[in-house]
Formats: sequence, C-alpha cells, structure tokens
Amino acid sequence: MTVRVGVVGTGVMGADHVRTLTGGVAGARVVAVSDADQGRGRAVAAEAGDEVVFHADPVDLIGDAGVDAVVVASPDHTHEALATACVEAGKPVLCEKPLAATAADCLRIVAHEVAKGRRLVQAGYMRRFDPSYVDMKRALDAGSIGDPVLVHCVHRNARALHFFTPEMPFTSAAVHEFDVVRWLLSSEIVRVTVHRTRSSSRAAARLADPRLLVLETAAGVTVDVEVFVNAQYGYDVRCELVGELGTVSLALPSTTVVRAGGAEGVAVHADFRTRFAEAYRLQLQAWVDAAARGEACGPSAWDGYAATAVAEACLRAQEDGTPVEVELADKPALYGT
Amino acid sequence: MTVRVGVVGTGVMGADHVRTLTGGVAGARVVAVSDADQGRGRAVAAEAGDEVVFHADPVDLIGDAGVDAVVVASPDHTHEALATACVEAGKPVLCEKPLAATAADCLRIVAHEVAKGRRLVQAGYMRRFDPSYVDMKRALDAGSIGDPVLVHCVHRNARALHFFTPEMPFTSAAVHEFDVVRWLLSSEIVRVTVHRTRSSSRAAARLADPRLLVLETAAGVTVDVEVFVNAQYGYDVRCELVGELGTVSLALPSTTVVRAGGAEGVAVHADFRTRFAEAYRLQLQAWVDAAARGEACGPSAWDGYAATAVAEACLRAQEDGTPVEVELADKPALYGT
Amino acid sequence: MTVRVGVVGTGVMGADHVRTLTGGVAGARVVAVSDADQGRGRAVAAEAGDEVVFHADPVDLIGDAGVDAVVVASPDHTHEALATACVEAGKPVLCEKPLAATAADCLRIVAHEVAKGRRLVQAGYMRRFDPSYVDMKRALDAGSIGDPVLVHCVHRNARALHFFTPEMPFTSAAVHEFDVVRWLLSSEIVRVTVHRTRSSSRAAARLADPRLLVLETAAGVTVDVEVFVNAQYGYDVRCELVGELGTVSLALPSTTVVRAGGAEGVAVHADFRTRFAEAYRLQLQAWVDAAARGEACGPSAWDGYAATAVAEACLRAQEDGTPVEVELADKPALYGT
Amino acid sequence: MTVRVGVVGTGVMGADHVRTLTGGVAGARVVAVSDADQGRGRAVAAEAGDEVVFHADPVDLIGDAGVDAVVVASPDHTHEALATACVEAGKPVLCEKPLAATAADCLRIVAHEVAKGRRLVQAGYMRRFDPSYVDMKRALDAGSIGDPVLVHCVHRNARALHFFTPEMPFTSAAVHEFDVVRWLLSSEIVRVTVHRTRSSSRAAARLADPRLLVLETAAGVTVDVEVFVNAQYGYDVRCELVGELGTVSLALPSTTVVRAGGAEGVAVHADFRTRFAEAYRLQLQAWVDAAARGEACGPSAWDGYAATAVAEACLRAQEDGTPVEVELADKPALYGT
Repeated sequence: MTVRVGVVGTGVMGADHVRTLTGGVAGARVVAVSDADQGRGRAVAAEAGDEVVFHADPVDLIGDAGVDAVVVASPDHTHEALATACVEAGKPVLCEKPLAATAADCLRIVAHEVAKGRRLVQAGYMRRFDPSYVDMKRALDAGSIGDPVLVHCVHRNARALHFFTPEMPFTSAAVHEFDVVRWLLSSEIVRVTVHRTRSSSRAAARLADPRLLVLETAAGVTVDVEVFVNAQYGYDVRCELVGELGTVSLALPSTTVVRAGGAEGVAVHADFRTRFAEAYRLQLQAWVDAAARGEACGPSAWDGYAATAVAEACLRAQEDGTPVEVELADKPALYGT
Repeated sequence: MTVRVGVVGTGVMGADHVRTLTGGVAGARVVAVSDADQGRGRAVAAEAGDEVVFHADPVDLIGDAGVDAVVVASPDHTHEALATACVEAGKPVLCEKPLAATAADCLRIVAHEVAKGRRLVQAGYMRRFDPSYVDMKRALDAGSIGDPVLVHCVHRNARALHFFTPEMPFTSAAVHEFDVVRWLLSSEIVRVTVHRTRSSSRAAARLADPRLLVLETAAGVTVDVEVFVNAQYGYDVRCELVGELGTVSLALPSTTVVRAGGAEGVAVHADFRTRFAEAYRLQLQAWVDAAARGEACGPSAWDGYAATAVAEACLRAQEDGTPVEVELADKPALYGT
Repeated sequence: MTVRVGVVGTGVMGADHVRTLTGGVAGARVVAVSDADQGRGRAVAAEAGDEVVFHADPVDLIGDAGVDAVVVASPDHTHEALATACVEAGKPVLCEKPLAATAADCLRIVAHEVAKGRRLVQAGYMRRFDPSYVDMKRALDAGSIGDPVLVHCVHRNARALHFFTPEMPFTSAAVHEFDVVRWLLSSEIVRVTVHRTRSSSRAAARLADPRLLVLETAAGVTVDVEVFVNAQYGYDVRCELVGELGTVSLALPSTTVVRAGGAEGVAVHADFRTRFAEAYRLQLQAWVDAAARGEACGPSAWDGYAATAVAEACLRAQEDGTPVEVELADKPALYGT
Repeated sequence: MTVRVGVVGTGVMGADHVRTLTGGVAGARVVAVSDADQGRGRAVAAEAGDEVVFHADPVDLIGDAGVDAVVVASPDHTHEALATACVEAGKPVLCEKPLAATAADCLRIVAHEVAKGRRLVQAGYMRRFDPSYVDMKRALDAGSIGDPVLVHCVHRNARALHFFTPEMPFTSAAVHEFDVVRWLLSSEIVRVTVHRTRSSSRAAARLADPRLLVLETAAGVTVDVEVFVNAQYGYDVRCELVGELGTVSLALPSTTVVRAGGAEGVAVHADFRTRFAEAYRLQLQAWVDAAARGEACGPSAWDGYAATAVAEACLRAQEDGTPVEVELADKPALYGT
C-alpha cells in the first residue's frame, strides 16, 4: 500500500520533507501541497510531480479524500488548528516541532486526540530517529554504562536567524534537548534552573546568548544544557550520558578526515538540515510505515506538550535565577504510564 | 512513476536488497522474486508482500512484462547469462559484484551491451555510493589535497567464509578496492605486484592470508592494498588518498563513543552489511531513479570487467612475486573515454 | 648551580616527587627527607641515594643548612606550620595541594609571606604545567576562540579512597578545577551553586556522588563542573573552553590506538599519577629553575588560598542549593592585581 | 654521581641536546662543547653556563679528563672517527643517526667496539624512547594483538631541506623506519623493494618524492613504508602493527582539540623536534643513567650499522624495481643473538 501524503507549509522544512518523501522514503507518495505563499507552494508542488495538487487552504488539503496522511510544516501558531483538523479527520499527522506555540495550545491538541480515542499526532522531534541517539539509548537501556547519574548536553547553532526572539532559544532550540532527554532517560523533567553567563558580542543583545540550563528529572537525574545559538563555527549538538559504570556520547558525525595545513580535522556541520538529514528521512519512513499499518509511532502529542511546558518553565526560571518547577497536567492513559 | 523490480537470488544479499527496496527506497516496488531454492525464494516473496510473484526460472522473471528492472544477486557463475538476458530484454539490471565469474565472461556482457547500443548494466560496487567515499572523491576532485601521489587501502574481514577459495581474496574481496581506486583516481590500474607475508595462524592454510598488493595506475600513481580476510576483530575498510598538499581518509563510521572499563572506544562493524548499509540503500535509490528516467548510472559493465581483470592479474602476479601487467581490451566508446 | 632539596612526607606523592627529582629534573639533588613514619622515610631516603639525610622532625629538615628548598607532601593539616617555617627560614617551598586544611590556615600563610616581603610558596596545582592545559590557555590568550563565554569541566576519579569525607570531593578533588579555572580565565570565582543529582550506588552514601557545580567568575563567565569520585571506568579530566568564535578542549592523552574485539579504543588513565606524570615533572623542573634564580613561579599562596575558599563556599552552597558568594580577603599587592 | 657531558656539534640537533641536558635531564652536566664553527660553538657554550669549556678540536674534547661521556651531533661524515675516538678513550658516546655515512663506516665502529670488548656506543634512534612507540611495542610483546603479520609505516616531512640528495630519503629519513621496525619486530630486515610513484610537483625533480618501500623481515613479516619528504602539511609519522587478533597504532600526539571555522581539528607537528621532544629527552636521560651505572642501553652500534645497510639496499633496489637482499655481516656476540 502506498501512503498518499499532503504537506502543509513549503518553507525550508516543508520543502525538505517533500524532497525526502519523494527521493528516499519507501511506500509514500506526495499528492498534495499547501502554503500561504501560493507561488512558493505551487513551485514545490510542480517540482514534486505532475499529479501533485495545490490547495490554497490547508483545511482543504486535510479534507482531501485523496490524502491519507499529513505533514504540518507551517508556522508554529498554525499548528494547533491544523493538527486538530487532522485529528478530527482521523488522519495521521506529522507536525513539525514545536507541536504548538504554547503549552496550552499543545494541551488542547492532546485533549482532542484523547477525545478521538487514538493516537494520530506525531511531534517532529526527529532526533529520536538519529542513529547516534538511537544507539546511545540502546547502550543505556542495555546497561552498558549502568544507571544514569548525570547528562551533559550542548546545543550550538552557528547563527540565530534574524527573527529569533528572546524566547526562541528555549522554545525553538532547547526544546529539542528537552525532548531527547525525556526520551533517553524515560523520565519527565520536573525542575529547571537557568544560569546566565557573559553574552557573546556576536549575539543580538536581546538574546543573552549563550546560557546554561540545569534540569532535574522525576528520577532525580541532573542534566546540564548549554544553549548557544550564535556559536559561529558551526552547528554542533553534543550529548554525554554519565552512568554508574561509564559514559556514552554522540560521536561527531563525519565522513572523512583531512590532513592539511598543519592540522588533522573533520568537518562540523553548518546546520541541522545536513546534521540530521538521515534522522529526518528515518522519521518520515517510520511515520509512513506506521500510517500504512494504521498505527502511531515516535514522539506523541503528549511529548510535544511536555517539551514546550519545560521551555515555558525555563522562561520563568530565567527571571530570577532560582529553580522553577515544571507544572504538567495529568498524563492521559492514551500515552501510557 | 514506480519502478517495478524483480530480484533474482534471495540469499543474504538478495534478501537484503528486497528489504531495502521495500523499506527505504522511494519510487520502487518489488514485484517478483526468483531463486533456485524455491522454499527460500517463496519465503522472501511472501515477506515482501502479497502481490510479489515467485518465478522458479529467473529467465521467466526477466521476461515478465510486469517487471521493469532486475537485481541479480544469484551466484557469480550465473551473472553472465542473467545480465545478458536483461540486456537482450532491454531492462536495466543491477548485478552484484563481481559482474561475472571471469574477466572473459564480463567482456561478453560488455559486448552484448555494446551491441544493444545503450547502457543497461550497473555493477554492484556499492562503495561508490558510500557517503565517506563520495566525500573523499569530492575533496580530491575539488583540489583540497592537491594532485594524488599515493593511496593506502586496507580491506579486512573478520573471518573468511568457509567456502573461500585461494582466488577469492582477490576476486571477491580486493575487487572492491580495485573498483574504488579506479573510480577515485579516474585512471585504470595497469600493473600489479603481490607481496606475500607471514600467514595468520587463524587463516586456512590455503589462503596465505593476509597479503599486500601494490597497484600502479595509468597516471603513475602507486597504491598499496592490505587484504586480510581473517582479521578477527571486525570488518574494517580504510583508505587514505595522499596528495601533494595533504591527505584525505575515510572516517571510522561510528555513532557513539563509550568510556568504560579503562578505555574510550568506538565500535568497529562486524561485517559489510552494517558498514555499508547506507551505501547499499543509496545504490538502489540511484539505480531506481536512473531506471525511472531511462538512464544508467554508477559503475558500468566496463567497470565490472576492469575490476575482475585486475583481480586476474593479481592471481598471476602472486605466482612469482614480480610485477604483472593488466591486459585490458579496448574500451568501447559507449563507456566514455 | 644545583638546588639541594628536602622533601617532607614520603607517602605516595612525596615518594613520587623524590623519584621525579632524582630521575627527571635537571639542576636538583634530593639531600634530605622527613616523615612521621620513620621506617617509610628512611627507606625512601636510602633509595634516593647514600648521602640523603633523614630528619625525624620536619622542622629540622627545614632548618638544615644543607637544604636550599623544600617540598611539603605531608598530611594537609601540617601544611600551614611547615609552609610557614619555610617562609620564616627564607627557603622556597613547593607545598602539595591543598595549600592548607582551611582557607583561614591558607590566609595565615599568605600573611606570613606578605610580612616576609617576597614570594617563597608555590602551591602544588600541577595542572598549570600540564602541556594540554598550557596549550589550551595559550589558544585562549592568543584569541583563537575569541573571548570566553562558558567553560565545561569534568573531574572523575575511578574510586574515592576509603578515607574520603563528604568535604573532600570539594576540598581535595574539585579544588583542582577551581585553581585551573581561575588560571585559565584570569578571573576570581565569585559565586557557586551546587546541584545534587541521583547518587551512584557505587559511592559511599555519605558522599552524594556525583554532583554538578556551577561557578561564576568576576568577569561573568559561568562554569559547570562535574565532580564524580567513583566513576569506576578510570581517571578522566575534561575541559572545554567555549569562546565567541569556537572552542578548545583538552585532548584525551593517549599514546596508542588499539583495534581488537570489535572496537577501536584508547586507554583512559587509571589515576592522576600517570595522567599528570609529565605535569608533575614540569612543575618540579620549573620550581627548581626558579629557586636557582631566586625567584618564584607557578601558583602562589594566594592562589592556594583562593581555591580552598571556593571549596568552602561550595560546602555552604550544598546545604540549600542556592547560590553562595565566595568571600575573599583583600588581595595583597605581593600577588599582583 | 653527576655525569659530565661533552657535546660535539652545536648545530640544530647539538644545541637542542645541550638545552635538554641542561633543562630536563637529571644527573648530568654539560661541561664541554666543540664545533667546527667556533663562533656558534662558543655561543652555545656560553649559553649553557659559565664553566662550560669550548674545544676547537673535538678530539681534545673526547680526551678531556673532565668529560665522562660524549654526544656526537656533528656532520655524518665525522661520526666514524669521533665515535671510534670515544671507544678508544673508553667513554660512552651517544651518536646522532645515522651512526656513520656508510654501512662500511658503521661496521668499522662495530669492529672497534668489539675489539674494545664492551658496548660504549648508542646510536641516536630516539624513537625507541618515544612513549607511543614504547607502548606499541609493549602491546605487541604482551600479545594484545597476537603475532604480527604486517606493518604499515608512514614517514612525512613537510619539506626536504635544500641540501637533500637523492640518497637522503633513504639514508636520513627512512633509516628511522628501518630501525624502529627492526626493534618493534625483533627481527632483521632481509629484503627490500622500492616502488616508484608519480612525483609531487612540490618536490625537487632529483628526489622522485614520494616512494613506497616494501620490506621483509627474517621472520617473514612484510612492512610497507611511505617516505614523503615534501608532504607540505606537516611532519607526520604513522605506524600500525597488524597482528593475528587486532592492530595497534601510534596515536596522533596532540594536546588540544579546537573547534573553529567549520571544523574540529588537532594540530599536526611542524617538525621532528617538537614531535619527538619527549623522546629526545628520555633518550638522553636513559643514556645518562646508563653511563652513571657504567652500562650501555638503547640502540647499539650494530643497530646503527643494520639500519644504514638497509638504506643502502634500498638505493640498489630503486634502480630496477625488483627485490634486493640486504647483506649483513655476521653479528658479533657482543650484541646478543
């Protein structure tokens, strides 16, 4: 069976998803596209194939009987309405992160899904499909390093996009770390502290970039997270799980080693699209496979909610520097225990 | 357009190709399977989907009007007949390496293809699609290390399969090195020397394992190749291109770094299937994409012939230890200059 | 000129210093030894050479006219009296870390030295002589990574010694981090936070091991420090300076790379003596060279005081988890600005 | 006891030895210096200390009753006479590599030493004291990788000095590889083949640089050696021992890891003096310690002879490209079996 996919939003991420579905995912076909910018949307549709339909209104795409499943890659503030429409239509939806603009918005998606009675929403936290993170979790779960006692995370972008607001280092960047830590440790984040530091002169003053976050999980494990969205030299994501017997870290993803000009070096990726290209592909493949089986997989709406709730706790925590509790709603049975 | 693929041979490699086509390649569908072992073949067909047809005779599969393109993964001695049948039928064929059992057999495939007047055969030298080798060639071609002056290659298997003959370290293992060196350097291998060394006590006596090959290209570049098919510790392929300004090497492909028990380590792959899993997938994707466009890509029948011709020169060279010339037929215009 | 050295304390560190002075430092000769354990002291003296004198009373050693300079490697609580005696005698003294048992004790040494009017005390923070740390500081000071914005430190021992008290992770282990951070950043540590985490089941319950410290320097740079004295797998010290343009980290100090048993690995040191063997040697060489010139070098009594003062602030900070200010005395002019 | 050392030759290496003896070797004192260039020699003497005597004639230095042991670092053609004079005088001599200008010269030193009846000559093959090579040999001898079956060596200089003759890639550069391979494998090199390759345009035409050597030991182990004296990017020495169970390689000697400008890198040394600084120091320390005990250590005159004999075999082998036997004299009992 071929899953017929509609893609809402054809900006950088949406266009990438179309290309990946078309060029590297088995069992799927992009059949429809939508974008508020009709010119851009129609161009992406045309590039994807002659029979790809363009819908000016994303709700029409979701309702299109020829569409089996939907990727939402439009602006964050549209996610709640679109994900909800997919749930109402009973169609699987892969929604780019963050799941929605606020934790409250996310929680409404959760409520809709719970009312519907089955999981249809996958949050686009693609790191859970990255081979390095997957192997790291496998090593932890296999007991290779013993029980976890600490985690060190680093999230560096080369440069913040011009529209980055003071909230986005938390809600857009660190939110990946919150999701992956919850997943790796199988435990909610319950408390956060934000440590400021000397700001880089390369960062816009409003960003107070970088900073250091300290998270605590329900199981009592402490996690430090550097968030630096103007690190200049490249896109660099690091993670080390420290266990009672040893540690496991992400390897630097590199293909070649070059010796030239007095140094031996490996390239650091320029941005997340190349660093996580395989994770994005595997995420789409797993989503398509699950859709074909009528099942759900990967990070749920609840996971999307929880990550954004931690980000909002960080926003409060950075006000005065003291620890702030993460207040989560009760977890519905739909999402397991 | 979906390319309908038939797969001949459902042993380890054939079954892997079926799984990869089904689970990770866009634009393809496995529709037919054949194997001399009907039980195995039917089981693989069933696993691949309800509508997958089993043909007891591979020639029937090739002739099946519902099959657009064929993967040949049956024993080496069957390659010539099957590849030729595909050429006669005008269907693209991806033929596992070696292209055929002998250089003479390969050359007959070449002759058939030349008679047909268009490229239909792709030899299964998947390393040309491995991201590390691709980036290495890109670095060389971009001038990052200057013109090449030497190449160092290492080919290690953990253990030779029980049926390994004294010829197979050359015709089955080193043949990958011959292909990739020709491709990296864009130059034919014209001369070979085989240096014996102390044999490992872990190797069957008949194999004289390991050995060191020294190759010379038409452009005068010398290449050394360690071939060790009983290296015990893992499957390990290394390559360093030495240029006038620097060198570029394959990075060790690893996902995580573990610190435990007094050491920091990364895993070495156990066999070629995991080491080159992504290369195999990208090879199939590129082949399918080319088939859909009615074009050919990747290593040609000529490349398949040349690699086996070098292996045969090595067999002669190991007799007395002196350099042996590689005698190649004239290259048909179909394969470029 | 040969500097005639007396060594007080012949336990693990003292005996090592004797061996290093005898076997790898130019311009020095061990002439006298003292230890409360006469048997051990006399044995070390005898091993060091026929003419090496044993003094039962360390004050006699300090007063010995044949002794030009003194290494103090006796228990921490004896440091204040012995360092002070050296200052009174006008003899250069290299005093093992911590400089003294408490910050108050350290400050009295400072006061004596200030009264004497010249620097005679070098605190044994040997990392300042480690080639990796030296090159890291050189890279920072040369502007290679831009101005610093964050520092990440990891201090792991394989196992805490049986006599480790709850204070010692701070006063004996982390104190190295405090010194090296102050030195690398050329800035005092003014505020500390201690984050607890899940304790390792391998650690004695009283140690609450590991923990995460967050330090802030006078220049506003935030530093996180993992202190884990029961990490099991080895002795592992890591440091990454994060600057506005890039980062510089300690390389893992390794001599060989081994591929065996399915992995490629490098050894992690078992303890600080092998990890920092060259740093200890270079520290002694620099101290001897300075003594021969009648000068002082390396970490001063003030540095020894400041490191212990930070450790004591951490002890207060772990009580309630909130940030604690480090209260330092006014810095005497003798120690620069 | 302090060993009083005289140093003949105060060029780059000789001056380095004086500095190392003065600044990092225990139990030694430089007391005399000689150089054909009196200005240079007197300057080095003055820098080394007030009491250091300058001898215009090196034979006077060797005969000086105040000199216990001699370092010979003058031009290669002077080695035979000077080493012989030291042997006649019964004084330990550390002679820079090559031991002498030709194998015949070396053999005359051997004959003198044998006539004297005790080992006094140490050839300056300092790699035997390099911690990486030492640990590599230790791993091999401990059986960590099983019995050796192959060795891969790389010797790269950034640029050949202007006076490099066509012989010097063998007699001056590769000679280090010959010594270290003999030592690592505890077996003589009995046969050599020289493979030419495309020359680098950066190399003087007369040098035919780089080339690939293939050596065979008496125990039947094959060794390939890249010799490239114009590699441009740095001074880079690599070695991998391949055993029946695994391999051990030299780690890249680096102190820090820098992430900047889109790459993660470590520095490659610019020349042998920094790369092997610690090996040179440990070589001198071991030589001084042995001299103090009245013993010999390290590579012997025989070792110096054998390395140069292999180099001369390579010169013959490069004429026609076929294997050439290394003809060694009978090994005197003085040098063991």
